[in-house]
Amino acid sequence: MRSPTAILQLICPDRPALVSELSGWVAANGGNIVHADHHSDPGAGLFLSRIEWQLEGFGLPREAICPTAHALAQRLGGVYKVNFSDYRPAAAIFVSKQDHGLLDLLWRTRTGELPMQVPLVIGNHPDLQPIAEEFGARFEHVPISKANRAEAEARQLELLADHGIELVILAKYMQVLSPDFLKRFDPPDAFHQVINIHHSFLPAFQGAQPYHRAWERGVKLIGATAHFVTEELDGGPIIEQVTVHVSHRDEVDDLIRKGRDCERLALARAVHLYLRRQVMVYRGRTAVFD
Amino acid sequence: MRSPTAILQLICPDRPALVSELSGWVAANGGNIVHADHHSDPGAGLFLSRIEWQLEGFGLPREAICPTAHALAQRLGGVYKVNFSDYRPAAAIFVSKQDHGLLDLLWRTRTGELPMQVPLVIGNHPDLQPIAEEFGARFEHVPISKANRAEAEARQLELLADHGIELVILAKYMQVLSPDFLKRFDPPDAFHQVINIHHSFLPAFQGAQPYHRAWERGVKLIGATAHFVTEELDGGPIIEQVTVHVSHRDEVDDLIRKGRDCERLALARAVHLYLRRQVMVYRGRTAVFD
Amino acid sequence: MRSPTAILQLICPDRPALVSELSGWVAANGGNIVHADHHSDPGAGLFLSRIEWQLEGFGLPREAICPTAHALAQRLGGVYKVNFSDYRPAAAIFVSKQDHGLLDLLWRTRTGELPMQVPLVIGNHPDLQPIAEEFGARFEHVPISKANRAEAEARQLELLADHGIELVILAKYMQVLSPDFLKRFDPPDAFHQVINIHHSFLPAFQGAQPYHRAWERGVKLIGATAHFVTEELDGGPIIEQVTVHVSHRDEVDDLIRKGRDCERLALARAVHLYLRRQVMVYRGRTAVFD
Amino acid sequence: MRSPTAILQLICPDRPALVSELSGWVAANGGNIVHADHHSDPGAGLFLSRIEWQLEGFGLPREAICPTAHALAQRLGGVYKVNFSDYRPAAAIFVSKQDHGLLDLLWRTRTGELPMQVPLVIGNHPDLQPIAEEFGARFEHVPISKANRAEAEARQLELLADHGIELVILAKYMQVLSPDFLKRFDPPDAFHQVINIHHSFLPAFQGAQPYHRAWERGVKLIGATAHFVTEELDGGPIIEQVTVHVSHRDEVDDLIRKGRDCERLALARAVHLYLRRQVMVYRGRTAVFD
Repeated sequence: MRSPTAILQLICPDRPALVSELSGWVAANGGNIVHADHHSDPGAGLFLSRIEWQLEGFGLPREAICPTAHALAQRLGGVYKVNFSDYRPAAAIFVSKQDHGLLDLLWRTRTGELPMQVPLVIGNHPDLQPIAEEFGARFEHVPISKANRAEAEARQLELLADHGIELVILAKYMQVLSPDFLKRFDPPDAFHQVINIHHSFLPAFQGAQPYHRAWERGVKLIGATAHFVTEELDGGPIIEQVTVHVSHRDEVDDLIRKGRDCERLALARAVHLYLRRQVMVYRGRTAVFD
Repeated sequence: MRSPTAILQLICPDRPALVSELSGWVAANGGNIVHADHHSDPGAGLFLSRIEWQLEGFGLPREAICPTAHALAQRLGGVYKVNFSDYRPAAAIFVSKQDHGLLDLLWRTRTGELPMQVPLVIGNHPDLQPIAEEFGARFEHVPISKANRAEAEARQLELLADHGIELVILAKYMQVLSPDFLKRFDPPDAFHQVINIHHSFLPAFQGAQPYHRAWERGVKLIGATAHFVTEELDGGPIIEQVTVHVSHRDEVDDLIRKGRDCERLALARAVHLYLRRQVMVYRGRTAVFD
Repeated sequence: MRSPTAILQLICPDRPALVSELSGWVAANGGNIVHADHHSDPGAGLFLSRIEWQLEGFGLPREAICPTAHALAQRLGGVYKVNFSDYRPAAAIFVSKQDHGLLDLLWRTRTGELPMQVPLVIGNHPDLQPIAEEFGARFEHVPISKANRAEAEARQLELLADHGIELVILAKYMQVLSPDFLKRFDPPDAFHQVINIHHSFLPAFQGAQPYHRAWERGVKLIGATAHFVTEELDGGPIIEQVTVHVSHRDEVDDLIRKGRDCERLALARAVHLYLRRQVMVYRGRTAVFD
Repeated sequence: MRSPTAILQLICPDRPALVSELSGWVAANGGNIVHADHHSDPGAGLFLSRIEWQLEGFGLPREAICPTAHALAQRLGGVYKVNFSDYRPAAAIFVSKQDHGLLDLLWRTRTGELPMQVPLVIGNHPDLQPIAEEFGARFEHVPISKANRAEAEARQLELLADHGIELVILAKYMQVLSPDFLKRFDPPDAFHQVINIHHSFLPAFQGAQPYHRAWERGVKLIGATAHFVTEELDGGPIIEQVTVHVSHRDEVDDLIRKGRDCERLALARAVHLYLRRQVMVYRGRTAVFD
């Protein structure tokens, strides 16, 4: 059993001595670093850092870490986030009719592989209620249409607030979230909170019916892309991509079947990276410290 | 050592008993089939077949096989091609300044892995002459520009004819062949004769500078696509695709470096499939009988 | 919706005209072949064939196909099996305490991806009873120990017979089946009936604790192997293998976590190939006609 | 163009504040860190670090960095190595008759992808002399047999010394280096100097004829393993592994052909990681900071 750790993610303007400053701060408080990853983007003049250290023996109590990190980040002119490895944030899974993403995420959560809780599943169709409830999640049916989108999203936001949701996962939700929804749940910064799985190898086959179009084009590999959701459809920062070989013998149905495995894998890996706080966003792209 | 074989490729309207008819024709002449692959496309009502049988003990001499297959294909309303496994067709490699594709193909030819000859290399720049000559190929420098495209292509076609070229491989040639060139060297049918390697995972990043655009987009996998060349830029039938993982640490130069390996592999596999007559084209896509 | 097909699998001594003979038999009865795959093994002098044709319009009724194929196989001195694509055989899943293989197979069965029924799950521990029952399978707890192995296997065989089981899938069962069990449920021939998932890339790390040993050895890829079970431990014919990259940052627990995905994929693909009758066994190895 | 950097690799007993101490040392001298990677192995109580910083603006001249790092490492009770990114060490490639590894490494060196020089190629057969010389390397034919092994290795060591060789690459050399050779050229520590490519997915098929044995076993994936050479045959620390799918249609020759691509890729990647000083050895395994 690994002992609990604190994780600091920080993005700030690049300059010399940043690694020293951050690790010096941890060391000054008696912390033992178990992982330290950094990345400099010369084009943007940015420095990204993820430092993870053991809480045992660390001089500051948990509640004092965040304010101290805040002061540090302010001094560096950056943004930051502090998390603890034994904290299991509440996530909501948005679904439509397809069950594979939901079932896979719930199973991985139950098995302890994904360190989160899933108190809430929201579906625009009622089909997946039994699966949600089997795993102890509340299922809320929020039908959505062009006519009622604003009210439906207001209801969704209310549910998210009621359940203390910090992460939304779109597991084949097949609906576009409005800019307003995003602004209210996930204000734009380096620490996104909505993950989607797209059923193609982006940027190939953006938009609808990617498997049909992949079949038409006769590609030899298909794939899936897990990405953060932004206002630009299928244009958010990519977290993980998975591909699988297909042949001329595969019909569209076979592409869909093989694609489901890619979708499950890419989404699960992306959520795992997110929960381990190994993903940071800059310039519309991700740094993945795995 | 495998004994020589004949290979019949045939595409015709689908109807019952075609497998029986084709294999029956081989059997009636005492042939021993070593590979038989078929594919039906219900949407197009097409039947594709590739049959390979040992020449040893076959009742027809080589020169009689083609006319007989011709009659068979006509009766079935189809198109066909007959090849022999010990025949090594003459291929020309078109290059520009990058050497990895050329060197790889020449090495694989010398080692016997690719059953072809390469008597001719055409470059729009002179840089790769030494490599071509090291491997015994004649290098022809045919500069090409907007102004002289027609004459340059005429010269290329003349060189292809002089050397009895049956296959053209664009190994990072970075130029577009005109519709007129294609019509004259490779008239449209099921048996294409020009293979290109594109440095992206098509249809992602069609056109110029794919690695730069892949870096900008922040994808987690890059790739290469070997395809037959048609009039539609980067739109020809795909033969093979290869991908490799990249991370935020990779600069554009790293993508280019990693991409070169994908390009070499995808191109070599596509040429190998072509030479073994395992690729057939229908509806703008390929059936690959591997 | 694809119309139902018949599938003939046949292995016999190689000689000329076999493809013609088999396809001629189908054609003579008015059958339309949708897939035909053959393989010759010169070393063993064997011919393997899988032919699939539409039942619609076929001259023989279903019940007459098997006797006719029997006569054909006898004449060719071979063994054969006939199956129908719309038949969903009954499979039993053997489990211990780990749930991922079971849950994945049951989900893929419910979703229609795996054309089988699972009326029975047998566990040597009671832990997975709820999952089995959620998916409508009967769970039987058959504890097993050195002392009671013979009686336990007798009980298992009785349960298999009672439920009309044709396929046994060991989904992380972690127990070895006795030669006697195998002889009675799965007499040695080309058409095996017990599939196991081994949690390593065989033949690396045969036997116990493969992930611990992989970690010790410092490999950079781990994997899983789905294979038919024979008397030789971890030595049966391999159907499918899947690998995933690991790094020095991965602890044994991470290898186990990543390995679970390989196990699920390799097992599901192997069962899918089996149910589509795309696997044949010869010389202790498989031909996979995919 | 990236500006030159210094790279410090260090292994020492783990204790708190090491990251701070190392980065503080760089910062105190005005260095700007571009990469910093660390790994703790709790089981062994070891800390591994790789720090890369820009030489431009660094307070110490190159010749002073090594002594200072030496003092630092001594204080921490560790071992260390300092390298500069614009230094191109001299490597010798050992070959036998197969040319693909040699040609690939020489091409990658010429193209600038592998930052090294190859002044020397040693072959126990004379076959590859032309390739070595094409790329400007001296070829030395040192025949080796049971009878003359000691003298042959003495001659090899003399050649290595004469050419200032720091890295030996066995590119399908097919000979075992004696413990004595290793002790003299590559004394055991964390910084190995001999890389081999083994033509199997180790630890599967250790020893001779791996492709033949893979074919016999009927595996569905084959691979290649690049590893540091130690006294234990095929037992040295693994740097990189690559696999490729094979089918029942592949003969041993096809496995050898497909395997060559795995061998080239795995070896080139391993040498690239080595030259970028991204590999460290501990407990018989590697940490790869890529």
